[in-house]
Amino acid sequence: MPKLWNETIQAHRSQVRDAILDTTAALVFERGLRSVTMAQIAEGAGIGRATLYKYFSDVDAILHAWHHRQIADHLAQLGVVREQVGEPGARLEAVLAAYARIVHKTRHGHESDIGRFLHRDEHLAEPQRQLHELITGLVADAAQAGELRGDIPPGELAAYCLHALDAAGALPSQAAVGRLVTVILSGLRPAS
Amino acid sequence: MPKLWNETIQAHRSQVRDAILDTTAALVFERGLRSVTMAQIAEGAGIGRATLYKYFSDVDAILHAWHHRQIADHLAQLGVVREQVGEPGARLEAVLAAYARIVHKTRHGHESDIGRFLHRDEHLAEPQRQLHELITGLVADAAQAGELRGDIPPGELAAYCLHALDAAGALPSQAAVGRLVTVILSGLRPAS
Repeated sequence: MPKLWNETIQAHRSQVRDAILDTTAALVFERGLRSVTMAQIAEGAGIGRATLYKYFSDVDAILHAWHHRQIADHLAQLGVVREQVGEPGARLEAVLAAYARIVHKTRHGHESDIGRFLHRDEHLAEPQRQLHELITGLVADAAQAGELRGDIPPGELAAYCLHALDAAGALPSQAAVGRLVTVILSGLRPAS
Repeated sequence: MPKLWNETIQAHRSQVRDAILDTTAALVFERGLRSVTMAQIAEGAGIGRATLYKYFSDVDAILHAWHHRQIADHLAQLGVVREQVGEPGARLEAVLAAYARIVHKTRHGHESDIGRFLHRDEHLAEPQRQLHELITGLVADAAQAGELRGDIPPGELAAYCLHALDAAGALPSQAAVGRLVTVILSGLRPAS
């Protein structure tokens, strides 16, 4: 049964890849961005160096892959949040709050170093576009339901939300993040 | 009168420096960031290469100086706008609108290339802090006058404003920038 065999190989490769990414992130968090070597990563992931080089050519490539996996995880989390809530306005609020928590968490501590290091990563345009599309859809639904202002194109309101939510990265506490989401949402209310 | 003589030298040096920055910016806008040489800049500014090297060691140093001059100009512009308007709420609105237009203008066209190139410039932390302080003061005044919400620390509201205003860089038109400012301001209104 070659198909099953292929799937087993695929699953194994995916596990090894995940182990490499997890090990690298842990090493970077422990020792800093610039002091981690391919040899340490291979040892930490429990594989040979030759095997490691079959997956990734260098530490930078691993960090990029790790960052992409993080972003894909975040988008998936927001997708789950979106499905859990019924009303358009509440759904938008839940997704914005979840995204604010992600921004707050990833800009504090170690992830922010890697984020800054990878800032010029051009592959991030596509997930950014997906995120903008997700929020635009939620805004359009809520505007159609009369729950927020309908006088401004949803895409512009989504850009406003995403940029304003970036402020969560500089805020000192979860409480401040909650207040930020409140302010952003009042900006979206119908003009009185 | 050595003092007058010193002032004359100082004014001359400042004029030469400005001419170097203006010439470099014009050359970069015309030919692109990477193809400009010190020889071209000296020729364009009407000075000898030896003189140019007394002012700046390389093109990168000139671009940094140019960028700092731009930011200082923008802060000065916002300061002027602040002084022109009387009421705290209207003053905040005028400054936010002026900053939105600056963001919109500098992110479109050539300036944005240089901005991205200099993104990691750590000297930008200080003007960013000044900008945040300026907006925080305006927010605090308007909150005290009861013109906007007083339930959230002014510094947090200023961070919200500045991040949200960043969206102006991605907007397609001045009209969209005006709508963005409207939305940001309604986020600041007292909670009803």
